[in-house]
Amino acid sequence: VNLSLNQATVHNLPLAGAIDVCRRHDIGGLGVWRESVSAVGLDEAAALTRRSGLRVTSLCRGGFFTHAARDERETAIADNLVALEEAAALEAEVLILVSGGLVPGTRDLGTARAMIADGIAAIVPRAMELGVRLGIEALHPVFCADRCAIARLADALALAEQFPVEAVGVVVDSYHVWWDLDVLADIARADGRITSFQVSDWVSPLPADNLMGRVHVGDGVIDFGPLVQAVGGAGYHGDIEVEIFNEQIWAAAPDQTAATVKERFARYLT
Amino acid sequence: VNLSLNQATVHNLPLAGAIDVCRRHDIGGLGVWRESVSAVGLDEAAALTRRSGLRVTSLCRGGFFTHAARDERETAIADNLVALEEAAALEAEVLILVSGGLVPGTRDLGTARAMIADGIAAIVPRAMELGVRLGIEALHPVFCADRCAIARLADALALAEQFPVEAVGVVVDSYHVWWDLDVLADIARADGRITSFQVSDWVSPLPADNLMGRVHVGDGVIDFGPLVQAVGGAGYHGDIEVEIFNEQIWAAAPDQTAATVKERFARYLT
Repeated sequence: VNLSLNQATVHNLPLAGAIDVCRRHDIGGLGVWRESVSAVGLDEAAALTRRSGLRVTSLCRGGFFTHAARDERETAIADNLVALEEAAALEAEVLILVSGGLVPGTRDLGTARAMIADGIAAIVPRAMELGVRLGIEALHPVFCADRCAIARLADALALAEQFPVEAVGVVVDSYHVWWDLDVLADIARADGRITSFQVSDWVSPLPADNLMGRVHVGDGVIDFGPLVQAVGGAGYHGDIEVEIFNEQIWAAAPDQTAATVKERFARYLT
Repeated sequence: VNLSLNQATVHNLPLAGAIDVCRRHDIGGLGVWRESVSAVGLDEAAALTRRSGLRVTSLCRGGFFTHAARDERETAIADNLVALEEAAALEAEVLILVSGGLVPGTRDLGTARAMIADGIAAIVPRAMELGVRLGIEALHPVFCADRCAIARLADALALAEQFPVEAVGVVVDSYHVWWDLDVLADIARADGRITSFQVSDWVSPLPADNLMGRVHVGDGVIDFGPLVQAVGGAGYHGDIEVEIFNEQIWAAAPDQTAATVKERFARYLT
């Protein structure tokens, strides 16, 4: 198993800085955020990643398909098509999709979920042309209303299975799925469909800012061993990508963060 | 369908005050908290509720079975046995169980869940002698680590089904289960096992204090119609109990809170 650093973990660094950190710490993969790509332009970003020799293990992110107005939905799909071009130029292994929450003004999860399926269907043909895989990420149910109506790995998998396996898979993120009694069985069922394995740890009790409460692997309550074993058993042999949203970690020296990421990877994930 | 006011919604009132509010607003049921019972003593509490003519729709709460040390587990079971006596004396329809989160010092949900099953098994015989039903409540996965390792209605149901139906059922709480794609199907499967139906609404984005972010029915994103229909379809014809943890609502005049509860009940739940 190889280690990838998701750029969100060293949030304050531009793309070139994140690349340098990976190289200094002998981390072979990088998960890239679109904001850092547009900051330098796609051509420059692609040149940077190509020269770095790093595996671009993901591009974060597409999705957010749920909108009340048709033109908003079309704008979202157009933006996802741009993201696909970016992913192809960066030779990213997957475009990660955070699908979007409830449609504003509605209370019906079914409507949101149907809209998400329609959005994915609209971009799958181009994804297949470009050879870019889409990864549907289930987000923790705490984010169901406002960010992602796909709340369990089982739901992500049911959605992915509506599409060709080479085009659409699922993202396993420890932070989002650890609580689910069925997650190991769902991972096994996802054999061949897992596009990414992201990790961070859940701290209890949850900090006030739900989005920012993730911690280094080993500092929380998640039992990583069974997850790592299950994901490997389901035929995923790509990188484990460490993605941590946490203001304190962002304020730390990136080299310190990278060193901790490596140490925890060796201790808990291999 | 009848309305019950869970005492937590008017948190600052003692038992007698909560009873008075129900009577002033023609609310026929009351969900009682153990703290308010011990504040006046069980005999006095039982006399108050009996004289009031209110249905005691629940006693909140037992559970919290997950502890590292054997003597702590035994203390928890002993406390649950006391809660059963209280529920019997109050003629409460159910003792609600919040099962407990991860065992301190461990990361294994399986251990927690087995300990919960053992705890319930230890109190079922006495529950049956007393004719008190236990209601296993699934809590939203955001509380999985620290409060309740039973995170989905399906998990609560699988646990309840290990015991006689007259002794152990499940609590459906809108706040905890609304996000679950399978919840309507799980409610249908729970036919005959539903002991309680509690409601409050989910506001998005979630406030900083996760425990206190619940709002009046209709002020959030939950689609109550399908839940009400499904619970009725699964043979539950008891009260709908409004239980809202929210500092602002607690600071409001209890009569105003009760009036809002009644109005929302009529508009969204009947």
